[in-house]
Amino acid sequence: MSGGLLEGVPGPASVRFDVDDERLARAAWSRLAEPGDLPARQLVQEFGASAALRGLLRGQGPPRWRSRLSDLDPVRDVRALERVGARFVVPSDPEWPGEPLSRLGVEQPFGLWVRGPLDLGEACERAIAVVGSRNCTAYGERVALELAADCARDGVTVVSGGAYGIDGAAHRGALQVAGRTVTVLACGVDRIYPTGHDQLFDRIRQVGAVVSEVPPGSSPTRWRFVERNRLIACLSRLAVVVEATDRSGASSTAARAAKHGVPVGAVPGPVYSPTSYGPHQLLRTGAVCITSAGDALDEIQRLGEAPSRPAPPRRRAAHDDLPPADLRVFDALPVRTTAPVASLAKVAGLDESTVLAALGRLELRNLAVRSGAGWRRART
Amino acid sequence: MSGGLLEGVPGPASVRFDVDDERLARAAWSRLAEPGDLPARQLVQEFGASAALRGLLRGQGPPRWRSRLSDLDPVRDVRALERVGARFVVPSDPEWPGEPLSRLGVEQPFGLWVRGPLDLGEACERAIAVVGSRNCTAYGERVALELAADCARDGVTVVSGGAYGIDGAAHRGALQVAGRTVTVLACGVDRIYPTGHDQLFDRIRQVGAVVSEVPPGSSPTRWRFVERNRLIACLSRLAVVVEATDRSGASSTAARAAKHGVPVGAVPGPVYSPTSYGPHQLLRTGAVCITSAGDALDEIQRLGEAPSRPAPPRRRAAHDDLPPADLRVFDALPVRTTAPVASLAKVAGLDESTVLAALGRLELRNLAVRSGAGWRRART
Repeated sequence: MSGGLLEGVPGPASVRFDVDDERLARAAWSRLAEPGDLPARQLVQEFGASAALRGLLRGQGPPRWRSRLSDLDPVRDVRALERVGARFVVPSDPEWPGEPLSRLGVEQPFGLWVRGPLDLGEACERAIAVVGSRNCTAYGERVALELAADCARDGVTVVSGGAYGIDGAAHRGALQVAGRTVTVLACGVDRIYPTGHDQLFDRIRQVGAVVSEVPPGSSPTRWRFVERNRLIACLSRLAVVVEATDRSGASSTAARAAKHGVPVGAVPGPVYSPTSYGPHQLLRTGAVCITSAGDALDEIQRLGEAPSRPAPPRRRAAHDDLPPADLRVFDALPVRTTAPVASLAKVAGLDESTVLAALGRLELRNLAVRSGAGWRRART
Repeated sequence: MSGGLLEGVPGPASVRFDVDDERLARAAWSRLAEPGDLPARQLVQEFGASAALRGLLRGQGPPRWRSRLSDLDPVRDVRALERVGARFVVPSDPEWPGEPLSRLGVEQPFGLWVRGPLDLGEACERAIAVVGSRNCTAYGERVALELAADCARDGVTVVSGGAYGIDGAAHRGALQVAGRTVTVLACGVDRIYPTGHDQLFDRIRQVGAVVSEVPPGSSPTRWRFVERNRLIACLSRLAVVVEATDRSGASSTAARAAKHGVPVGAVPGPVYSPTSYGPHQLLRTGAVCITSAGDALDEIQRLGEAPSRPAPPRRRAAHDDLPPADLRVFDALPVRTTAPVASLAKVAGLDESTVLAALGRLELRNLAVRSGAGWRRART
């Protein structure tokens, strides 16, 4: 463990917990190194959390990881969480959503602090992220709610960020149909942010899962929001932006999704709506146009194993898809009077035998009626 | 001229005009063979209209081309048009929009009957098709009008089909800013369809161009509408569908555009609006998302020679795009009290020298303020 990534200011330190406990060591790292601190993650992935922590205690590693060493107490953190019925899930746990999170590579979290009865791994086998602006329109809120409800009804877990606006509507949509929902926070799972959503979070803790990679007590900083978005994206098979201005966090979620190979969906809206600017930009850069849960499920299935669902039935007119000659004869048929075949041939620009054959087919489809010596269009 | 395409029922016929006049012969063919009759077009492109017509008069060619021979009088057609200030434009004319129409290959029209002062070739050098449903919403009508007006103001000709709804709004938008507009009809240019648009067509005839490939007196049949749509698409550099149900003519225009290599644009709208179903389907199959004339002009320029226009300025917050360390220190800065560097380092999870350097940069950007022994966030 000497040299390499752990070079730095020497000086031994001590801690009040069993460093060899990999789970506690990961919990410790989740406090020492901020989300997005990639060298710390690389180190832990390469050597394990315990070995990396022992190096740090021997004085190795950059000073930034040492600034929080003195307050470190992962036993207290884990116990505090257990008191509220929560757990710290690490990659060796059966519940760890290993396959989706593997897309993050070195950006994978040390572990996830989880509150709620949902098995995270199972929930994320087929999950959709539904995200968007806090300052959304009634239109966006309705779309988010219905999209989430219809996806949840189909057994798809709805992942979002618990914010006001689109996120909240997405969670509520899933809850309304007793579906599964996961909220990923930028603060500790013992905190409530935004505070106005305390009842919503209560409900999600009872039936879904509240998830964070930062330890209990952590406050939601802008930096943590940015990094949180990668988890929302990568726990899902499709990340749908319902409404977003160009600066909103949902656009950052879409960017992280695209970076890690998660398909991005965007909900169109009125061109005059500033909150549809973000989705329209995404549509211009390859996002899938999502207008309903059907579209989203199609996309998830298309990427998964199941065959694509059949196209919805089209509303059709009787003369739709007539072959060219038949359509031209149909066009030529008078509605009120009748016309002889010779006159139909002239109007349609076809020879008489073609007209006769077409009239036969049109009669079969109840589009043409013979009347005396002539023909007319059938009444619809 | 014997054999090959001109095989068929023999029997000589005669006509009352100079068959060797290529322009008159093309006018004759525009009456004999319906739009979409590709063998007739192939024949005329290969041998010339006069030679092909002589063959037909000698009894060669399929009977369908002979059904209208007896009524043929292109001299009367051309004169009737000249009386209303119109002309029959053929490929040898300088006004012929040769480059755009060449995309049609064998589907090129024999000629175009044109009413109005606009030079068709010049008008179609930089043209946009703006099309959509007759039964459009107020939203679609407004988008079409503004899109057309803003494009026309930029010197782009607005091409459409003169129908109620989106088409009409597109023409009106161009006329409102004294811009150029071309309406392509499925009937003769001496007729008015739909009749409620007589004043609109009056105005287009005065300042724009009313165009058709079918001769005077022809009625607008469903078949001719379908074929007309290929001309709307191919006279333009970009074909934008504003609103359309899945069965509307605008979707057929988009399909013809795509077939002949004209880029398709689609205007998004509310997902609950049935008239936005068509554009959303198009967005799913590769259409460009068009939310404003700026988007359309970008697309036209991208395909043409001029460099792309700069992206519109984004609304920005002071802390946008801070480097990671600076954002984390900014997050850590208290708003009401102050904090010493050591405490900031702990909160941000960074070493003190990094925090100090970040504070320097944040101070320069007026985001951090030193106050006594500590630092706080600057008031915005």
